[in-house]
Amino acid sequence: MEYSLKQLASIVGGSVQGDDSYLIQGLATLQSAGPCHLSFLANAKYTSQLASTSAGAVILNPASVESFVGNALVVDDAYVAFAKLTHIFEKKSSSSGGVHPSAVIAGSAKVSPSALIGPNVVVGENVVIGENTVLGANVVIGDESVLGDSCEIKPNVVLYHGVRLGHRVRIHSGSVIGSDGFGFAPMPDGWFRICQLGGVIIGNNVDIGANTCIDRGALDDTEIADDVIIDNLVQIAHNVKIGRYTAIAGAAGVAGSTVVGERCTLAGGAGIVGHLQIADNVHITASTMVTKSITEAGSYSSGTPMMPTSEWRKNAVRFSQLKDLALVIKKLDK
Amino acid sequence: MEYSLKQLASIVGGSVQGDDSYLIQGLATLQSAGPCHLSFLANAKYTSQLASTSAGAVILNPASVESFVGNALVVDDAYVAFAKLTHIFEKKSSSSGGVHPSAVIAGSAKVSPSALIGPNVVVGENVVIGENTVLGANVVIGDESVLGDSCEIKPNVVLYHGVRLGHRVRIHSGSVIGSDGFGFAPMPDGWFRICQLGGVIIGNNVDIGANTCIDRGALDDTEIADDVIIDNLVQIAHNVKIGRYTAIAGAAGVAGSTVVGERCTLAGGAGIVGHLQIADNVHITASTMVTKSITEAGSYSSGTPMMPTSEWRKNAVRFSQLKDLALVIKKLDK
Amino acid sequence: MEYSLKQLASIVGGSVQGDDSYLIQGLATLQSAGPCHLSFLANAKYTSQLASTSAGAVILNPASVESFVGNALVVDDAYVAFAKLTHIFEKKSSSSGGVHPSAVIAGSAKVSPSALIGPNVVVGENVVIGENTVLGANVVIGDESVLGDSCEIKPNVVLYHGVRLGHRVRIHSGSVIGSDGFGFAPMPDGWFRICQLGGVIIGNNVDIGANTCIDRGALDDTEIADDVIIDNLVQIAHNVKIGRYTAIAGAAGVAGSTVVGERCTLAGGAGIVGHLQIADNVHITASTMVTKSITEAGSYSSGTPMMPTSEWRKNAVRFSQLKDLALVIKKLDK
Repeated sequence: MEYSLKQLASIVGGSVQGDDSYLIQGLATLQSAGPCHLSFLANAKYTSQLASTSAGAVILNPASVESFVGNALVVDDAYVAFAKLTHIFEKKSSSSGGVHPSAVIAGSAKVSPSALIGPNVVVGENVVIGENTVLGANVVIGDESVLGDSCEIKPNVVLYHGVRLGHRVRIHSGSVIGSDGFGFAPMPDGWFRICQLGGVIIGNNVDIGANTCIDRGALDDTEIADDVIIDNLVQIAHNVKIGRYTAIAGAAGVAGSTVVGERCTLAGGAGIVGHLQIADNVHITASTMVTKSITEAGSYSSGTPMMPTSEWRKNAVRFSQLKDLALVIKKLDK
Repeated sequence: MEYSLKQLASIVGGSVQGDDSYLIQGLATLQSAGPCHLSFLANAKYTSQLASTSAGAVILNPASVESFVGNALVVDDAYVAFAKLTHIFEKKSSSSGGVHPSAVIAGSAKVSPSALIGPNVVVGENVVIGENTVLGANVVIGDESVLGDSCEIKPNVVLYHGVRLGHRVRIHSGSVIGSDGFGFAPMPDGWFRICQLGGVIIGNNVDIGANTCIDRGALDDTEIADDVIIDNLVQIAHNVKIGRYTAIAGAAGVAGSTVVGERCTLAGGAGIVGHLQIADNVHITASTMVTKSITEAGSYSSGTPMMPTSEWRKNAVRFSQLKDLALVIKKLDK
Repeated sequence: MEYSLKQLASIVGGSVQGDDSYLIQGLATLQSAGPCHLSFLANAKYTSQLASTSAGAVILNPASVESFVGNALVVDDAYVAFAKLTHIFEKKSSSSGGVHPSAVIAGSAKVSPSALIGPNVVVGENVVIGENTVLGANVVIGDESVLGDSCEIKPNVVLYHGVRLGHRVRIHSGSVIGSDGFGFAPMPDGWFRICQLGGVIIGNNVDIGANTCIDRGALDDTEIADDVIIDNLVQIAHNVKIGRYTAIAGAAGVAGSTVVGERCTLAGGAGIVGHLQIADNVHITASTMVTKSITEAGSYSSGTPMMPTSEWRKNAVRFSQLKDLALVIKKLDK
């Protein structure tokens, strides 16, 4: 796996400054790159690293070209060019489809001949598996679920029954799609379970991390729109709808029936309570708890700043007196 | 699967207003129901939706009957009646018990003939599996564990050794019951692991979501009482005790040795630190961090309200000065 | 499994007060111990329980010896002695290595003859499995991964390709090591995935809980140093580095490229945002959100104290006015 800068430039639509026959074997950060590596500068605040890098070549935006004397691949957006080239250097498993003999596939399932079904996979009745879709080892697909083309389902993922995935959906290991929503009616003698009769619909190009949960709907479906990206350990409750292009970072959670708009971001650990409406282009900062609907685009936060615990205790105790302190201020102000 | 309103009324103990021979094929929300569906109105604030619904019939409380001119199933508690009818319309897998040929069952295990053991299931030594219990694909049951009757263990669940489940326990995919509690003694040259010699006891009618963890006890058992319901991605640490009827929502956590009372609720993302006592009928709101024991029933909260980030920053910086601000107020008040 | 106090004293390096031939069958807490049990007092605040315990013997620090009249095992550190003895009383599976016939092992993998490979395990190309390492049922090991000696990988763990574990690494069920970091370049028509070309390196003696995620690096590796302990449901993002002896409790999270020092502790639910540096010996309290680098050892906190919700609401609303209240105070103070 070796590419000349000229070849790489043609892939990302850039030009070469320096030796365009220079051979590149991989990508690396400015700090760890060696002469066989192509690196990149996407953020001007790291410009000083150009002086000390051992990279054989660097992907640069036009504005940075003058800061570097070595070989450079000059492009409009160095970060996007880097992102594209990661696909060149990713190791692909060579496979031409087929079903591992240990897999258990229901007779009524329709599996594309180009799909690759790993060891110990279990596929239920009437399931449809699209072209070039890959099911890793120990994946379980419930009855009536439908997977589009070119999906990658990593080992130990479970899709319950009636889950529908679009094309090019990637789901990392341990994630569970379509488990029961948390729905129970309170009764004098305990919780009466509400069977979750809805399903889950996931659009095209959706990327889901590891150990994430997306529950099936109570009656209607839980819906993840096209081009949504979701990180690890995320909780999506029943009947949530996530709008297109929205990104949800690790350990965030969205409670039941909440509708999140398009192009939103939820940072790590953020939570949204149930039955809310979140507008498009809303950004929720890390660990923020959203307890009411948001009707305007923008960035939203909650919480308090971190500080040394001894100092924090003294401020925190005053938080408990804030109502009374405010009354005193009011009185004094009069 | 088609039922007349008369049949459904007899199941839930209600009466029909309108055509009691009207045939229902499924349940749906007021907004998405069609003529073949039965819907329900459980919350008076949605009464206006009765005017526009296309539902063939609606489950109503007596107080709402006059608001609707179509077919109605009139019951004391519309939500409970709806919950009951979800069980009528849930698709059941038809199965009469049996062990999939790919399952690996220890010779000393006692598996009820009416139990259903899925593909690639692994059952350890001296395990007992009760009547009509279902183990989904790839479930692993450790040595000496005991499962009661009519349990549903979904695909890819792991029960370690020495875990005891009552009857009618449901555990969703990816959950891990009986992994080691996080117990280590600090030593000059590192952490010395404390073997976790206790087990986990789970009562009857307990429902556990997906990717939840319940650790085994250090010496005594971790205990989940009857009728507890637990959502996805919940962390229950070693030697925790959860009281009867308590409900724990998604991504909540309870640290080691804490005892939670009966009929409590932990909302999503709530956390309780270790070695605390929480009284009965305590309700913890979303994302609240509980750092001291609670001796009185009631609702408890922590955190700050969400607001636009620019505004939040200005308030948050003042939180850091709260101790000093309070001193100034005190001085001025004198 | 029965030991005299004399035998146990020789194992932990202590002395016996009372009958050193007394036989012990197990360990138990002071409250639940019976005559066949050895208990321990590690924290002086439980000294009163010595009077009422039915334990056959108790492990005591020298300072507590006079408080107890029964058989005692006297040691310098009762907690460490207890920790050591848990290893005596833990049930070990008897196994002499071997590969279960249902396991699927790539021809190029090098598996030590003393390793134990459970049912339905899948091992990829060029994997190396060290001596006495145990892979539980349904474990999946990706291509090119290397596991040292005496590792314990519990059922349903997934290691992606290119993950390297040291010796004596334990990973509990459901954990996923080496899934893709959450890296996407924003493009006008959606998120462009950045292939995660780095790996994960985990040192010796690392203990990882259940359903935890450690992502592979984007270019460089994600690194967990020797002697780190990690609890359940923890999120470690790409290119994070965790220093030696650091402990991370349940549901904590560390975002991308953050470097955590040595001998730190993250309590349950704590979160650290990306690209930060955390010094050695830093302790983060439960649910604290760390949004800036920490350069000095010590304890750090954020959040507000829990209180009854009705009271909390009144204080929380004043938090939203804190900036303005501070201005009034300033004005009045002048």
